[in-house]
Amino acid sequence: MATRQASAANDPSANAQRDSDGRLQHLITLEGLSRDELTALLDLAQFYVRAPGDLPARDQSLAGHTVANLFFEPSTRTRVSFELAAQRLGAEVVNLDMQSSSRVKGETVLDTIYTLQAMHADILIMRDAEPGLPAMIARHVAPHVCILNAGEAHLSHPTQGLLDALTIRQHRADFSQLTVLIAGDIAHSRVARSAWQALTTLGVKELRIAAPEDLMPPAGEFAGATRYGDIDAAMRGVDAVMALRIQRERMLHSQIPDEASYYRTFGITSERLNLAKPDAIVLHPGPMNRDVEIASDVADGRRSVIQRQVTNGVAVRMAVLATIVRNVQARRQLR
Amino acid sequence: MATRQASAANDPSANAQRDSDGRLQHLITLEGLSRDELTALLDLAQFYVRAPGDLPARDQSLAGHTVANLFFEPSTRTRVSFELAAQRLGAEVVNLDMQSSSRVKGETVLDTIYTLQAMHADILIMRDAEPGLPAMIARHVAPHVCILNAGEAHLSHPTQGLLDALTIRQHRADFSQLTVLIAGDIAHSRVARSAWQALTTLGVKELRIAAPEDLMPPAGEFAGATRYGDIDAAMRGVDAVMALRIQRERMLHSQIPDEASYYRTFGITSERLNLAKPDAIVLHPGPMNRDVEIASDVADGRRSVIQRQVTNGVAVRMAVLATIVRNVQARRQLR
Amino acid sequence: MATRQASAANDPSANAQRDSDGRLQHLITLEGLSRDELTALLDLAQFYVRAPGDLPARDQSLAGHTVANLFFEPSTRTRVSFELAAQRLGAEVVNLDMQSSSRVKGETVLDTIYTLQAMHADILIMRDAEPGLPAMIARHVAPHVCILNAGEAHLSHPTQGLLDALTIRQHRADFSQLTVLIAGDIAHSRVARSAWQALTTLGVKELRIAAPEDLMPPAGEFAGATRYGDIDAAMRGVDAVMALRIQRERMLHSQIPDEASYYRTFGITSERLNLAKPDAIVLHPGPMNRDVEIASDVADGRRSVIQRQVTNGVAVRMAVLATIVRNVQARRQLR
Repeated sequence: MATRQASAANDPSANAQRDSDGRLQHLITLEGLSRDELTALLDLAQFYVRAPGDLPARDQSLAGHTVANLFFEPSTRTRVSFELAAQRLGAEVVNLDMQSSSRVKGETVLDTIYTLQAMHADILIMRDAEPGLPAMIARHVAPHVCILNAGEAHLSHPTQGLLDALTIRQHRADFSQLTVLIAGDIAHSRVARSAWQALTTLGVKELRIAAPEDLMPPAGEFAGATRYGDIDAAMRGVDAVMALRIQRERMLHSQIPDEASYYRTFGITSERLNLAKPDAIVLHPGPMNRDVEIASDVADGRRSVIQRQVTNGVAVRMAVLATIVRNVQARRQLR
Repeated sequence: MATRQASAANDPSANAQRDSDGRLQHLITLEGLSRDELTALLDLAQFYVRAPGDLPARDQSLAGHTVANLFFEPSTRTRVSFELAAQRLGAEVVNLDMQSSSRVKGETVLDTIYTLQAMHADILIMRDAEPGLPAMIARHVAPHVCILNAGEAHLSHPTQGLLDALTIRQHRADFSQLTVLIAGDIAHSRVARSAWQALTTLGVKELRIAAPEDLMPPAGEFAGATRYGDIDAAMRGVDAVMALRIQRERMLHSQIPDEASYYRTFGITSERLNLAKPDAIVLHPGPMNRDVEIASDVADGRRSVIQRQVTNGVAVRMAVLATIVRNVQARRQLR
Repeated sequence: MATRQASAANDPSANAQRDSDGRLQHLITLEGLSRDELTALLDLAQFYVRAPGDLPARDQSLAGHTVANLFFEPSTRTRVSFELAAQRLGAEVVNLDMQSSSRVKGETVLDTIYTLQAMHADILIMRDAEPGLPAMIARHVAPHVCILNAGEAHLSHPTQGLLDALTIRQHRADFSQLTVLIAGDIAHSRVARSAWQALTTLGVKELRIAAPEDLMPPAGEFAGATRYGDIDAAMRGVDAVMALRIQRERMLHSQIPDEASYYRTFGITSERLNLAKPDAIVLHPGPMNRDVEIASDVADGRRSVIQRQVTNGVAVRMAVLATIVRNVQARRQLR
C-alpha cells in the first residue's frame, strides 16, 4: 500500500481531481484516495441503500443543481444509474447523446463542456474511450464544476470500484481478513483497475488477479496483487470472486479463440466456485455474457451478488454526488 | 362472453398478470379482466380527463416510484403518452433506448429487467415484437415490480383497448346498445385484439370486424364478432367505426397490392360513413396514413374522435399506473 | 426602421404569431416585434441571469405545463438550453427524437402536433429545415398552444437573436451608440437574420454585414445594413463583431474552396480584432470551427463573450417561455 500511495502522488488524474485545499472536486480515479475517504463514501452509500421492494432513498442534496450525462460510449446501465442517483437527490438531469451531436459537428469536447458549464450544468458525468480526457477537462473547468468519470478507456471507473468494495463489505465488514479474486481480461479492464485501487487502499488481506497470459497486465501494474494463470488455483480459499466481461474482439487476438474455450478454461462455474470458501460471493460488473465468463446457474445462484451490485451502484453514485456537491459548497463558503 | 372468459382461464398472459390474491400486479392483456375491473379503470381514467386548454390532471399517486420505458420497437407516441402519465403522477421516469443498448451488447432481456429492478425501477413499461415476452418477464420479476405491456407483437395492447373503450363510452354510456366496427388489417392487429377483449367484456351489443380476406384472422379468434369482407355492408347502422393502420409491407403480400386500391376498397370515406348512424364516431389508433385507411376529411371531420383518443390515452395510462401501484401497496400492507 | 416595420406587416410569420388581441402567442420570428416588446423580453431575461458558480434561477412560472421538444434537425446545444429553461420554470419536458420517429412512419407533421396538443403538451419547441413550417403549424394549433421556433431553415432563430441582443446590451446599454458587425455566411444564416431584426428594431447606430461575395444575401434583404466584402474594412471601429459558423459544404460551392483560405480571408483573428474598438466584444453562436471562422485565441480571449451568450441563451428562453405562458393565461382569463 505504501508503494501505491507513493505512485498516486505522480498520477496526473489523482492530482487533477482535488481543489487547492485538497478536497475532492471531481472523481476521476480512486488512485490517491485515502482509506478514510473511501470509508466515508462507502458509509454514505450504505445510508442510501434500500431493500428490494422498499421505495428508493431520496433527499434534496442536489436541489437546484443541474447534472449532465455525456456518454461518448453507449452505456444504458451506467447512464441510468447516474440519472436515477441524481434525480433522487433532487437534481435536474439532461442527457446528451454524444454519438450523434457535437463531435459530429466538429466541436471540440472542451467547447461542449464550456457550453454546459455556461448553462449552469455544474456536474458533468462523462464516459469516453480516450485515456486522460476527464483529467484534461477537470483542469479546464471553473472551480464550481465537477467532473465525474463514468468510465475512461481501460483505466478508470471509480464508481464501479466503490460499488464493488461496498458489495464486498456488506458480505464481510473486515477487509483485512479477505481474499478477493478478479478474473478475466484484466489487461483491458477499467473495472479491475478501479477495484484494485479501492480494495488495496481499504487493506484487503490478499488481492488475486487471474487472466489468460495475453490478457494479463504488464508487470508494473496491479502492485501487490498475486498473479495467476490458472483459474482453479486462483479460486482456492477466496472470499469473493469478480468475473469480468470478456469481449469477443479481444478473444480473437488471444490464445483463447472462442467463447466455448474461454468458458472451459476461465469461466466461473459452480464446480470452480466449490474451490472458494463455502460462503464466497460472486460479482460481475454487467452486462454478462452468460456461459462465457460466468455460468448461468452461478449468475442466478445463491452466492451471486450481481443484482445487489446494481442496487449499490445507485447508492454509491448518490454518495459521490452528495459528497462532491458538499465539497464545492464548503469551498464556496470559505471564499 | 361466457366462452371468452372460459378461454381466459387458459391464457398464460391473463394468469401471469395477477398476484397470488388475484389482484392485477401487471397489465399484459385485457383477457380475463372482469367487467367491473374494466369499468373501474375507465371511471378512474375519466377522472383524469381534462378539456383541451385546461392544464392536465396531476397528483402524487406515484411519488417516490421510478418508471422505466423499455421500447424495443420505436414508438414516440405511446412512449410519450406513458412518460407524461407517469410524470403527472409524480414518478421519476427514465427512458431506455433499447435499439442501441443492451441487446446490442448481447445481454438477455431478463438481465436488463433484473438490472432495472435492482435500481428500484419498479414499474417497467415495455413494447416488443416478441409474443409472450411480457408474460415471461412478469413471471420472473420480484413481487413489487409491475410490467405494463405497451404493445406486444400482434397480440396485445391493453391501454389502447382501454382508451378505445373510454372514447366510445364518452359517446354513448350504455355499451349494450352499441354496434362497433373494427375495419382493416385485423389479422395482424394488437389494437383490434385488445379492443375486441374490452368491448366484448363490457357487453357491446354487436362487434363487427371487416377485413380483406387475407387480412382476416383465423376462425378461432375474435369469438362472438360478426365478420365482413365488404366494408359497405359492415358500416351499415354502426355507432362507431375504428379504422386500423395498414402497413405497406402487408399490402404487398395481400390481394390489395397498393394504397390506392386499399383506399378504394376499404378506406373509411365520408360516403361510407354515411352508411353508419348519423352521429357515428370514427376512431383511429394513429399514426394515420391519410387517404389510405381513412379519408383525410373524415380524419379531420366532426365525427372524428381521434384527438380525443390521444387525450384519453394519457388518462387511461394514469389510471392503470395508479391502480397497479395501489394494488402493490395493498399487498405490501397485508404481508 | 420605418421600412422594416412596414414590411413586417406583410410577413406571414410575423402575423401568425399573434393572437386576435395582438399578444404574442407564439415566437416564430423577431420580425414585427416592437422595441418595447424586445426590451421587455430582454429585461425579464436579465432578471434570470446568474453569475457563473451561482445556482441557476428557478421559479414556477410553467408549473403544470408540458413542453415538448421537436427537433427535426439535430441540435444538442439548443435543445438542452430550452430543456433547462423549461425545467427551471417548473414545466414537464418531453423530448421527441423526430429523426427516428413519426416522419419515418409517414405521419404528417401536423398530425404529430395534433397528437402532442391532445396530450396537453401546450408548448411546442421546434427546429426544422423547412421554411414556413412553424407559421403553418401556428395557424392550425388550438388557441392555448404555443409554438416556439428554435431554428427555421435559413430564415429565423428568434431566441438566438434575443440572446445576441442581450449579450451586446450587457456590454453597452445604449444601442443608439453601437456599431455591430456580423461576419461570414450571411446568405444562409438564420442567426444573422434574427440578429439583424433584433438589433435594427432596438435602434443600433450601424449594423454592418460582411461576407464573401457569393455568401452575401440578395439586395432586398437586411435593409439598412452596410455591406462589406472586405472583412478588414468592416472591422474598423466596431463595438461588437459576431462571427458566423461556416459549413464545409457551403465552401465547396463558393469562391473560398477550403477552411485555410476562409480563415485567411475572413477569419476573426486577433490582428483583425485590433481594427475594432479597444474594448470590442466577440460573439459566436456556436458550435465553433476554431481557426476557421474564428481564431482559437480570440475565442478564448478576454474580449470573447461566447460563453456569456450561452448563459444568456437559457435566460432568454426562460423569459420567452414565461412571457408566452402569461399571455395565454391573460387571454384565458378574459374569455
